[in-house]
This record gives sequence, C-alpha cells and structure tokens, in this order.
Amino acid sequence: MLRFPSVGTDPAHAQDCRRAAQWLVRELEAMGFTAGLRETTGQPLVAGSYAPPGGGAGLPHILFYGHYDVQPADPLELWTSAPFEPQIRKGKSGKDAIFARGAADDKGQLMTFLEASRCWLKVHGALPFRLTVMIEGDEEGDASHLDCFLKANAKQFPVDAVFICDTGMWDEKTPAIDTRLRGCMGIEVTITGPRIDLHSGYYGGPARNPIKVLSRILADIHDARGRITIPRFYDGVKPIPAKLRKQWEALRFPAKRFLGEVGLSVPAGEKGYSVLEQMWARPTAEVNGIHGGYRGPGSKTVLPAEATAKLTFRLVEGQDPRKIRRAFKQFVKDRLPPDCKARFDDSGGDSSGIAVSQDTPWIVAARAALKAEFGREAVLTGAGYSIPAVESFKTHLGADSLLVGFGLADDNAHSPDEKYDVDSFRHGTRAWARIIAQFARE
Amino acid sequence: MLRFPSVGTDPAHAQDCRRAAQWLVRELEAMGFTAGLRETTGQPLVAGSYAPPGGGAGLPHILFYGHYDVQPADPLELWTSAPFEPQIRKGKSGKDAIFARGAADDKGQLMTFLEASRCWLKVHGALPFRLTVMIEGDEEGDASHLDCFLKANAKQFPVDAVFICDTGMWDEKTPAIDTRLRGCMGIEVTITGPRIDLHSGYYGGPARNPIKVLSRILADIHDARGRITIPRFYDGVKPIPAKLRKQWEALRFPAKRFLGEVGLSVPAGEKGYSVLEQMWARPTAEVNGIHGGYRGPGSKTVLPAEATAKLTFRLVEGQDPRKIRRAFKQFVKDRLPPDCKARFDDSGGDSSGIAVSQDTPWIVAARAALKAEFGREAVLTGAGYSIPAVESFKTHLGADSLLVGFGLADDNAHSPDEKYDVDSFRHGTRAWARIIAQFARE
Repeated sequence: MLRFPSVGTDPAHAQDCRRAAQWLVRELEAMGFTAGLRETTGQPLVAGSYAPPGGGAGLPHILFYGHYDVQPADPLELWTSAPFEPQIRKGKSGKDAIFARGAADDKGQLMTFLEASRCWLKVHGALPFRLTVMIEGDEEGDASHLDCFLKANAKQFPVDAVFICDTGMWDEKTPAIDTRLRGCMGIEVTITGPRIDLHSGYYGGPARNPIKVLSRILADIHDARGRITIPRFYDGVKPIPAKLRKQWEALRFPAKRFLGEVGLSVPAGEKGYSVLEQMWARPTAEVNGIHGGYRGPGSKTVLPAEATAKLTFRLVEGQDPRKIRRAFKQFVKDRLPPDCKARFDDSGGDSSGIAVSQDTPWIVAARAALKAEFGREAVLTGAGYSIPAVESFKTHLGADSLLVGFGLADDNAHSPDEKYDVDSFRHGTRAWARIIAQFARE
Repeated sequence: MLRFPSVGTDPAHAQDCRRAAQWLVRELEAMGFTAGLRETTGQPLVAGSYAPPGGGAGLPHILFYGHYDVQPADPLELWTSAPFEPQIRKGKSGKDAIFARGAADDKGQLMTFLEASRCWLKVHGALPFRLTVMIEGDEEGDASHLDCFLKANAKQFPVDAVFICDTGMWDEKTPAIDTRLRGCMGIEVTITGPRIDLHSGYYGGPARNPIKVLSRILADIHDARGRITIPRFYDGVKPIPAKLRKQWEALRFPAKRFLGEVGLSVPAGEKGYSVLEQMWARPTAEVNGIHGGYRGPGSKTVLPAEATAKLTFRLVEGQDPRKIRRAFKQFVKDRLPPDCKARFDDSGGDSSGIAVSQDTPWIVAARAALKAEFGREAVLTGAGYSIPAVESFKTHLGADSLLVGFGLADDNAHSPDEKYDVDSFRHGTRAWARIIAQFARE
C-alpha cells in the first residue's frame, strides 16, 4: 500500500490514487466485506461494509475512517530512502520503523485497525458490531469533497460512532484519546473611508483614516485579561470540567519549552488558564493578516481609502460559528465612525468546536483497552485545530468520533523520512483488538 | 523657457535641464546680474546676484527662489496642444492662458518676479535691496540636492529673507500669502513576536500576535477627542493666534464640499478645531500603511512573526521632529508586551513645521502691495504639507520665506493641459513690482 504514490492534490497522481483505493477494496473484500469505490467530487472513496452473521441488528454500528492520500514527497533529496519504496530500518530513536511517505499519515495508522479487524475475524469469526469502513483520498486536500459526499448520502450511513486512527500518542509510552477539537470561523473585514487615497499633507487631520479605525476595532476585541469582548461571544461555552483540568495539570506540559521553541516565553492568552487549556479548551480571536495603504520601501504620505484584516476565531463546543460571525459583524459596525463602512468576506468558512463526553461507551472502552495495552492511563487530550472530517461526521451523520492514534512526535508526518514505528503498528493493532474486545464483552 | 523639456527626474532630459538653466543665466546677465551655474549633487543650480550701486550695504539682502524643472508631461495624449510648444488660448474659464508643462509650476510664476525686477531696473535704475536669485532643477525630485548645496555653501548667502513664487491665490480674485507650513516626520515600526509564523490551530491562544500588539499601539495614539497621547508630543506647540483664527473663520472655507469631494462628511481630526485649523495649524499622527501576515485570497490560519506600520507625523512650528521621533519610539516601547520587540526604520526623514509672524517687514510689505494690486486683503493661509526648500532656507541660512504666488486651482499643475493665466502673469508681475516699491519707500 505504501508503494502507491497516492498524492491526492497532484493531478499527475490521479491514477495512483485510484490504484491505492482499488487495492484497499480488494483487502476489504478479502476480509469478507462488501466493498467498492464511491465516486466523489474529488478522489474516489473506499467504502466497505460488514455485518455480523444474522445482520447484527441491536449491535452498534461503527464507521471506521481513514485516508489513503498522502502529502507530496518533495523535497526528494532529503529522503534517506525513496519515499515510495518502503524500508524497515532503525530510526533515530534506535527502534525499528518503516520509512515511506504515508507510513504514519495515514496508511500505517489505518492499517492498525484493519489488521485488528482481520485478526479478530480470523480468531472469533465475527466482529461484535456492524462496521462501515470509509477511506477517503482528499484528507490532505479539500475537505469539502468528503463533506459533500456525506451530506448527499447521509442516510446510507446510520452509524452510532466513528473510529479514527489519525492522531498521536502523548509520548512514546503514553496513549492518548483526543476528545476535543476546536472549530474555526474565518472572516475578512475591510474598512473603507475616503473615496480615494488622499495626500496626508492636504488631508492629514480632517480626513478619516481607515487603518486607524481598523486598528481600534482590532484592539478592542480583547480586554486586558485576554478575554474577548464581542457581546455573546462566550454564549454556550462550558467551563472546563474540573476532572479534565486536573488530568491536564497532571500531564506537566512543558509550556516553557513549547513556547521557547518558537521564541516566546510568556503565555499571551486568556488569564486564568494554562497554556494547554488556552489551546485545547478556550476560544480565540486571531488576526491572521492585515494590510492597507503603502507597503513599499521608504515613506509615502498617503491616507488610504481602505484597510483590511483577516481573522479566524477558534471555537469550542457550544459556540455557533454563524452566531459568532453575526456578532463580530455587529461588533465592527458598532465601532464605525462617520464616513466609514465595513465590507465582509465570509469565504473563510465555519466549523464548530467539538468536545466528546468522557462517558460515551466508545471512550470508556478505549480507555480500558489502552490501559491494558500500554499499562498506563490514556491521556484525554484536546487539539487546538479542526479535523474537518470529524465535523462532517457530526453534522451529517450525527455521530461522535473516537480519535485514537499511535503516531509519535518524531514520525516526520508531512516531512522527508516519514516513518511509523513497528512498535506503533504492533501496539496499535493490539490496542484496536482490545477495543473490539470491550464490545464483545458487553 | 517653456520650450525646454526640463524634466528634472528623467535622465534623458539632463541636457534639456542644463539648457534651461543656461537660458536663465543669460536672462539674469542681460538684467545686469552676475550669474552662473553652480553644480550640485543633482541638476545644476542657477545663481545670480545683484547689488545696487555702491554695494547696497545696509539694505536688506533678499534671495529669490524658484525652480526650472517640471513634472513629466505624460500622458501626452491628454494634452490639447504639445506640452513643450506653448500656446496662448482661452482656458475653460474663458480667460487667456498660456498652455505648457511648467507654465504655472514654476516657470510662469518665477518669471513674474524676474519681469518685475527687470522692469524696475529699467525704470528706476536700481533695486531697493541686494538680491540673490537661486533657481534649482530638483524641486519635483529629490529635495536633498538643494539642501546639501545650501548646507555646504551657507556662508555665501547671508540673506535676510527668501521670496518664493510657487504657491496660489485663495481664489481668482483674492491674493494669498502662505505663512504656515507643516513639517513631517516619517517612521516605520515593525513589531516582532514569535521567531517564525505559527499555525493558529496549535498556537492560537498562548502565542503573542504582533498584529494585535501593533493594532493596540496604533489605537492608543489618539484619545477620544482626536488628541495625540504620545507624552510631550505637543511640547512647543503654540495656540493659534486669535487674530489668525478669526481671519480663517472669515474665509468661510467650504469644509463640507472639500470633504464631500473625497467621499467624507464629518471632520475626523482634533475636536475644537475647524477643518482649516486641523490642516494648517495642528499636528497629526497618520498611519500611511500597515502590513503583516497573510494577504492573499481566502483564509490562512497563520499567526505572523511580525507586523509593520508606516507613520508620518505632520508637525507645526515649535515641535522638534527628532524629539517626536524619540517620544514615539518610547511610546511604542512602553506598550510592548513580553516577547515582543520593536524595530524602527528612520529613513522617512524629518522636517520642522514653519510659521512666519504676520509682522515681518516682508509680510507687511506684501500685504500692502497685494491689497493695492487686487483691491482685496491677502488671505494669510497655511498649508498642511511641507516645502522642503523653505525648511532648508530656514535651517541653513536662518531666513524666513515669503510665499506669494498667483496660481489658480484650475491651473492643472502636474496634470495635462497645465496653464498659467495671462492675468496671473500680469497681476503677479505688477504685484512683485509693488512689493519692491514697498522697500523703495522705506
């Protein structure tokens, strides 16, 4: 599977993507699944389905999700061995690993679940749930292909939960379950003032300056404690559960080192929250870009006709991106002085924050299984970013995702010499088998 | 003189500039002046000197300044007649005018003074002052050439006052004397934060965002009444004399129409001052450009490593640009949160604001002369911009400038179909003769 250069975003590799997908179809068929390719607006999607003998009515219906597309391999000269000729050798940590583009992200990871299922079927004859396998080819590219597919075909997938193997361990000895993802709302605002750029020698003083107006608006978004002042912004945001705060505290996250690596030393976020909490469980307002007026060398005495800022708001569970979009627009309008207008570009998109309860049967099963496999409690982590597929499954199928993965920080996902430890593969496969076992016991 | 295409900033016209300058030298010599070219770091400078019989010791020493260089003529297709083939015809106002590039700015204007002097000499035999004529070729280009020349040769020009004919009338019936020019201090500030651009999904929250820091600093510069909050910014700024405020009020400046032409309706400057006062007599802080982070299409979830703003401060008499530069830097530094640094680019340059007392002998003489010529009191205007030559004469020669000019708003200076009304030329020449007469009477 690692030999297919299935770079989903490169049209030159369209056939390689299709071949990788077909290979997966055959694997699923060999396991006794009904499987085939489903066409999407992007790369073909591998869809397989399994039902226990008798149909499994009454058993949970699980959807396993992964992706066969990989990042481009360049720069090729930085690879020790060719990216699509997998090689098992010792990595920097001294442990055996398989080196190839996609070894970790996501081919190796998704195979941990497929191998666990294959073994379970071989030994026990039947899985303890109904199973849909969905492996897409656009994860590294445009998330809208999967989203459209799910929206159009939601009724065909009445699933109870989604299992995903595309995340990492807390460290090489400690397993992790990602239970929180932040959403994201992107918006661009342009403040317009005078009809044309003006000469500051003539108009400097009486003429309204859109850069000043925009700066004031951006400065107003946060108060002195780093809280966002947009009215109703925090509507629906739940306090971080005390239990979770304690768990995260116990991780002793090296915030100093984390910030130090990028040249920072003092957390700049909301006061009263640790760095992990600021990243995993609190919403933000970030300015990603600003421009207006003259930016060439030297000085130009212009008063610009407009100024633009791009913002993204990272959102948490309970916040409605569309309401936040409206609230931000109102916040801007409330601050417009005479002669200024605001123009908005909404193409930045919306996704909601997600937090999964620690008490779902899937999390309970996964925690027990991971503890048994690794001899340590799984860390219930969060992530500051979005995983669009998780959002799509939630929106269109109404299903929460269980995010369990065995990647390590040194796997070089997206970089040259990507690898997946043989230990990750073995532990991962056994861990999924233990999760499956949790359902068999019920 | 209008036939020389003396475009000072275009190397292809270097010989045309020199020829225009030589033509002026011959004119001055024909008037009995000692004249020649002085080389500068830019175009050659025309320098002529005149002393009344007996040397004129005890008489004032006047420097008359003008420029023979002109703006480029393009776009040529928008000219009714060729820009360097002067033509006298009726303009849009129905009055005779001479059409050519430089007709108003500044060849026509400077000739009003030379013709007045020539006539005076013809009729009276001697001028009532010592006179230096200085006509440069870099006014439309780099002001530093004249500045360096004056700095290096200051002792050769021990003048009492500078007469300049490069400004306009208040309207076609009302003469004007420009008694105030704002200075300008330009500076660029870059706020740096993280060592590299960061992904807002990971770092959004704890990471310091330089755009937010810069926005806060820019927003802090003005208070709610439009006053600048930089400590000691207003040191040395004198209140506008009550007499002058009254004169300006009496002008009934059409502020609504002035702002309306550029799409504005409400003066945005300092409260408590009229639009004219905001432009002519009050200092400002303007942001001329801002940039940082992503500015391409759509959204990019980046936290940028730095953000930059370009500012100019328009200054009035009494403010020291170097002190303001230092005060602004301190103002920025006082607002830097942890992990942020500020980098400054000082290449924007410094010039001081200038205000000439209404009681100098030159202003008194000019007011009387203009009233006699036009039958109306001259308006004592201000200007929001700088005239670098005025600043250089003040700095290096210690001399104030008398700014009297006969340009009209419809002269199209810097544009196609530039013209100078024959009336401007005739009134202007007579007005200078009357000013000369004021000195003869003393």
